[in-house]
Amino acid sequence: MSVQAIAWAPSGAVRVVDQRALPEDYVTRDLDTVEQMADAIRTLQVRGAPLIGIAAAMGLVAGLRELRAEPREPFLARLHALAAQLGATRPTAVNLRWALDRMVGVAHATSGDGGGVWERLQAEATVIWEEDRAMCRRIGECGLALLPDGAKVLTHCNAGALATGGIGTALAPIYLAHDAGRDLHVFVGESRPVLQGSRLTAWELTHAGIPCTVIPDAAAGALMRAAQVDLVLVGADRIARNGDFANKIGTYALAVLARHHGVPFYCAAPWSSVDADLASGDGIPIEQRAPQEVTTVAGRRVAPATAAALNLAFDVTPARYVTGFLTDRGLVQPPFAA
Amino acid sequence: MSVQAIAWAPSGAVRVVDQRALPEDYVTRDLDTVEQMADAIRTLQVRGAPLIGIAAAMGLVAGLRELRAEPREPFLARLHALAAQLGATRPTAVNLRWALDRMVGVAHATSGDGGGVWERLQAEATVIWEEDRAMCRRIGECGLALLPDGAKVLTHCNAGALATGGIGTALAPIYLAHDAGRDLHVFVGESRPVLQGSRLTAWELTHAGIPCTVIPDAAAGALMRAAQVDLVLVGADRIARNGDFANKIGTYALAVLARHHGVPFYCAAPWSSVDADLASGDGIPIEQRAPQEVTTVAGRRVAPATAAALNLAFDVTPARYVTGFLTDRGLVQPPFAA
Repeated sequence: MSVQAIAWAPSGAVRVVDQRALPEDYVTRDLDTVEQMADAIRTLQVRGAPLIGIAAAMGLVAGLRELRAEPREPFLARLHALAAQLGATRPTAVNLRWALDRMVGVAHATSGDGGGVWERLQAEATVIWEEDRAMCRRIGECGLALLPDGAKVLTHCNAGALATGGIGTALAPIYLAHDAGRDLHVFVGESRPVLQGSRLTAWELTHAGIPCTVIPDAAAGALMRAAQVDLVLVGADRIARNGDFANKIGTYALAVLARHHGVPFYCAAPWSSVDADLASGDGIPIEQRAPQEVTTVAGRRVAPATAAALNLAFDVTPARYVTGFLTDRGLVQPPFAA
Repeated sequence: MSVQAIAWAPSGAVRVVDQRALPEDYVTRDLDTVEQMADAIRTLQVRGAPLIGIAAAMGLVAGLRELRAEPREPFLARLHALAAQLGATRPTAVNLRWALDRMVGVAHATSGDGGGVWERLQAEATVIWEEDRAMCRRIGECGLALLPDGAKVLTHCNAGALATGGIGTALAPIYLAHDAGRDLHVFVGESRPVLQGSRLTAWELTHAGIPCTVIPDAAAGALMRAAQVDLVLVGADRIARNGDFANKIGTYALAVLARHHGVPFYCAAPWSSVDADLASGDGIPIEQRAPQEVTTVAGRRVAPATAAALNLAFDVTPARYVTGFLTDRGLVQPPFAA
């Protein structure tokens, strides 16, 4: 049984799992305002490309609750300002922008004052979440044939239930294969610096009773050379029309290693991760995060105080390394039309 | 100015830098007995293939001080037992066995009782250390031409002053190029799980005033794709006759990535790292360390309590990926005769 990363709280706030506390503590937080949601996204309490789209849409609804009595124009003006605030939290995942654009578009297409528009927005955010759950399941079904009994899968970062509103993207086929009684083993790259692999993916797989083994990211090559990996399954934060895609730093190296060892390499993502405005991966903005995520771990310094560190959160994998894209529209190949 | 990792203490004990405390604290410890030295090697207070050879030889001398009054036979019997104890601490690096075999051979070749044999052993341990210092310098000179002004080097783990009795192996050319006034930049793979890159290499380079940037191991591929790496320089824990070599986990992946991007890849090691008994890398024993090194960092759990973790300390890089071997006998190519 996979974990549920997001929900409406009875108060109308957005209830999220605080992913910074995992795997030591399972803590949920109710976020009442756009400021709280923006902070939660920026500090990685809530992360994962599909999930931050859903969270931004739901956060917008929670944050606009107090403005339901406003006339149309000031309500829409405030909506625009709050959407811009949420949109500025993280640059790489396209889903965030996609979800916010959709919410703003729906608001404009709905007549009436604050109260009516707000109700429409609440329904739309819930639809975005429900569509995401269905999308996860379709990706899972589309990838199920890749995971016969005994399959050994390598994944990176977290593209699971904790990154979506449902059962994940890259992990969705794994959940469904496990439910179908197949015996699988998942190798989980720990995904330094933020350790989403060991902290989150290993946690949610263990939670669901799926056997997994955490490895240092640097061990992936040796594992492939030892023929311990049947396929690589990763998520995506943004996919260009030509199929180049951005995902957690280290994904590109896994793609090169997989190609070198003849291991199939699949990218799993919702169609909403395709950025129709981008011809190739060269145009994807890569978030550079604070060097302290590299130079300290759990508050302890692991590099000299004066040492520089480079903390690119993502890298771009050219489409030519990808065996196939698992999407809610099936197993597809680029180019991806708008 | 590079750091000095080992020395004789005035008491006759072996003074080492406790490498577990770096980079937060610089602590030296005086090790009086073979038990203390074996424990220091096993727990990575003292690590690095050349250094553990020197440390074992010097530890043997310190531990035998109390037996100088013994007749020849009981002294030699005790020497054998203590050498076996030190030799069992870590399986992969051949230098440990090489240094201990040399000490035992010298003892047998020296006539007389405990006192005389001990003095000869003390001199031999010092010679092993001094030879290592000279070896480091020769490796440095041999690699100097690879590092023109402006060179950007990627290294992994720690093959520096903290891994040897001198200025290191892979870092030796870097120290000499810096001394020659060349402007260099060193990218340091952090080397999870034990973080010898960020904790030790970044520390000793910073200590010497050499510009460096720590990167998560998973970022090496993206860095090479961005043409930020002119060459890769790594050490070795054991080299087979055909040139296959064992080094810190992650070295093999770097070799594959370097080949894929046309980046020269050099292995720097003393000739004593060549294991003439081994035809290929398939025979190198790979140390598997405790999973807790992967599942916890600085005492804090970073994976679920029930998650498995694979902690191979080393991997084997086939010779075909290596542009050249920097050794105390020059820049050489396999096969390596005995």
